[in-house]
Amino acid sequence: MALRFRPVDASFYDLFSEQSQHLVRGAALLAQMLGEGADREAVAKEMRAAEHACDETTHAIVRRVNSTFVTPFDREDIYSLASAIDDVMDEMDEAVDLVLLYGVTVLPPEAASQVEVLQRCADLTTNAMPRLRAMQDLNEYWIEINRLENQGDKSHRRILASLFNGQYEPLEVIKLKDIVESLEGAIDAFETVANIVEQIAVKES
Amino acid sequence: MALRFRPVDASFYDLFSEQSQHLVRGAALLAQMLGEGADREAVAKEMRAAEHACDETTHAIVRRVNSTFVTPFDREDIYSLASAIDDVMDEMDEAVDLVLLYGVTVLPPEAASQVEVLQRCADLTTNAMPRLRAMQDLNEYWIEINRLENQGDKSHRRILASLFNGQYEPLEVIKLKDIVESLEGAIDAFETVANIVEQIAVKES
Amino acid sequence: MALRFRPVDASFYDLFSEQSQHLVRGAALLAQMLGEGADREAVAKEMRAAEHACDETTHAIVRRVNSTFVTPFDREDIYSLASAIDDVMDEMDEAVDLVLLYGVTVLPPEAASQVEVLQRCADLTTNAMPRLRAMQDLNEYWIEINRLENQGDKSHRRILASLFNGQYEPLEVIKLKDIVESLEGAIDAFETVANIVEQIAVKES
Repeated sequence: MALRFRPVDASFYDLFSEQSQHLVRGAALLAQMLGEGADREAVAKEMRAAEHACDETTHAIVRRVNSTFVTPFDREDIYSLASAIDDVMDEMDEAVDLVLLYGVTVLPPEAASQVEVLQRCADLTTNAMPRLRAMQDLNEYWIEINRLENQGDKSHRRILASLFNGQYEPLEVIKLKDIVESLEGAIDAFETVANIVEQIAVKES
Repeated sequence: MALRFRPVDASFYDLFSEQSQHLVRGAALLAQMLGEGADREAVAKEMRAAEHACDETTHAIVRRVNSTFVTPFDREDIYSLASAIDDVMDEMDEAVDLVLLYGVTVLPPEAASQVEVLQRCADLTTNAMPRLRAMQDLNEYWIEINRLENQGDKSHRRILASLFNGQYEPLEVIKLKDIVESLEGAIDAFETVANIVEQIAVKES
Repeated sequence: MALRFRPVDASFYDLFSEQSQHLVRGAALLAQMLGEGADREAVAKEMRAAEHACDETTHAIVRRVNSTFVTPFDREDIYSLASAIDDVMDEMDEAVDLVLLYGVTVLPPEAASQVEVLQRCADLTTNAMPRLRAMQDLNEYWIEINRLENQGDKSHRRILASLFNGQYEPLEVIKLKDIVESLEGAIDAFETVANIVEQIAVKES
């Protein structure tokens, strides 16, 4: 085993893993919410609980950054990463909330593919977190997230255009646009997480 | 009197107090704007003046950060705090501006409660600024701001849903949605200010 | 010739110049897109190529920041400036993309003045980049950008109000609002670039 030159508080990695697992849960709830026959009130309640749990982990990370003398990587980077993961959760929570709030029952069919992208991003992010420790094998993760974000962006634009194909009333367009934009916002937020991980890895390598 | 180990430029605290007092003024003007029988052109003009005055204070803080050798807390934190306070003002200014621009005369009744939340946030923020000096008794401030932001968020979602209850024409919904979103944006911006104050207090304690 | 006290990698300035030249190209394509008789598919394709080229330069800057020991100014500032320039491009790309996507053929006439503001901002920004080296004569640049942003903001509000003058159907308003907001977003993004340049100049002077 190699010598470590500075003692670090390893549990940051555990906290980031915990935090990103909330994203996996959030993406699964989002898929349920948009599925047929869902008890939408119940799913939205579970989403609020998941969002709250993610908040708690975020605060735990911030507290630890502020009370730890030697951090495994730059303090600001830890803070940025935790905030960025929390932002993903907020976007997914907003999507679920808007579906319930607006009483939307039918989304454009392509919205399902956006949720699949989100689930894939959540899995990739969770799998990447333990690799932060060794700062290795992170390349594939961010290349794949960037690819998914590009794919999601193309789908988003197709969905946006489809809202104006004459099928929806103006009020319905306003509602659906808010919801599909929050899905797109969540995908973008995953890309921001990946960019921060890339920055950290490049700096520490 | 305790010894100070480093000479600091105390007037940063005065500048932050001054800056947040512009927010108190802005929130009062917003309440007037949404009240009955207001001379909306006149109120909007006063709001522009208040927004301009807040900009001036922000620039004064930035100039001082850049020309001061020893700052009372981290340079980036001073800059972040000043920018965040300025962002609140911009959101309130946008709300006032949109009301005038769109010729909206009746807002959803719950919008008044959002403005009350904003007035309360402005008061709390102004009262907290002098306490930055001793970095004491700031807990209550940010807990209360967070509570108000949660309350505002719930109201916001109720207001959003109410826009689609059949009472408003699509064009009216588009206008009202912009306005209530800027109110929500201002409340969120107050929470960002409180989060930065929390960060500073934890770091310096 | 004066002595240099620290060896710096001068090519950062070249990269920033290169990056801002993509903005000049983007603004010209935007003007074409909104002009009469444009082959919109072709212009949008060129815009995607320009946006991609800007991304490449941004990545080149980030890689260089991360691999260079002594940078000409703060690492975070280089990163912020590169990101901010990239954000301008993204906003202009979005505007072009939305015009194509929404099949909009007639924009409010004032939109042309917003594009002129963008072209002027792009020119000013490109001309300012080489002056970063000596950190001189940057005052005029950011004062002029701020003036243009104020002018753009006033036009934006007039355009927004004009969307509700009874001339457009609700669905058309939703589309046009997205497009004019991305133009406004691009102008704001130029102001953010100028603010970062100002910060850097003040710090280094």
